[in-house]
Amino acid sequence: MPDIVVLPVGVVRSSLTDPREAPRQPDEGAPASRIELTPAAAVAAADLRPGDRVIVLTWLDRADRETLRVRPRDDPDRAEVGVFSTRSSHRPNPIGLHEVTITEVTAGVITVGALEALDGTPVLDIKPVLTDVARR
Amino acid sequence: MPDIVVLPVGVVRSSLTDPREAPRQPDEGAPASRIELTPAAAVAAADLRPGDRVIVLTWLDRADRETLRVRPRDDPDRAEVGVFSTRSSHRPNPIGLHEVTITEVTAGVITVGALEALDGTPVLDIKPVLTDVARR
Repeated sequence: MPDIVVLPVGVVRSSLTDPREAPRQPDEGAPASRIELTPAAAVAAADLRPGDRVIVLTWLDRADRETLRVRPRDDPDRAEVGVFSTRSSHRPNPIGLHEVTITEVTAGVITVGALEALDGTPVLDIKPVLTDVARR
Repeated sequence: MPDIVVLPVGVVRSSLTDPREAPRQPDEGAPASRIELTPAAAVAAADLRPGDRVIVLTWLDRADRETLRVRPRDDPDRAEVGVFSTRSSHRPNPIGLHEVTITEVTAGVITVGALEALDGTPVLDIKPVLTDVARR
């Protein structure tokens, strides 16, 4: 299968800078963050509005892509399992999924609620959370 | 920002071969499908079991990456909107998210329920649907 080149559409700006302090899930203390978009991505984002629930896809660039098995939550009392059974960031393609609420939109910058991604994390895509057929 | 190279971990095998016949969402008639994994990915998938709810991430390789605005569902009566406000496959990084139930697991092959992806679509990742903290 051919390689696939992904082009970041933006970057996360966050107070989270140390991987050891990053919460594992957004309900565990993630901060509000900004997403700075490229000019083309700002066109794609032009109809996003405060209050929208979206899924932000990120590239977890500090993850280890060689890891295939992990102990969930690094807990030594838990058995090692294949990474596809976990949300570990360490996996062959470390794409993060972050369901967040947009709180502010300005030219090229989207502010969102709790986002568990380190400062500088590339953003790959933003999608609406599917709610009803009318919005698809 | 640097380019990012994604390496497929598998491929979708499906009766869907014509993009014009592909359903837009899984509750609109998508068929059961198989995911054929690479040997390394089979290690990462070794703890997946029938009944597991997972999110399959795909690379929608027949999408147009230059599209920034679309009419939702190609409906001429709807206004054009930025693609980040839609689930259109046409977007800068056409990563598909498919929430499915695993029905069968054999060596290197995972069979899942309704999956709206064309035959040959590269698979990038498989993640458990987050349900409760204990499973993280």
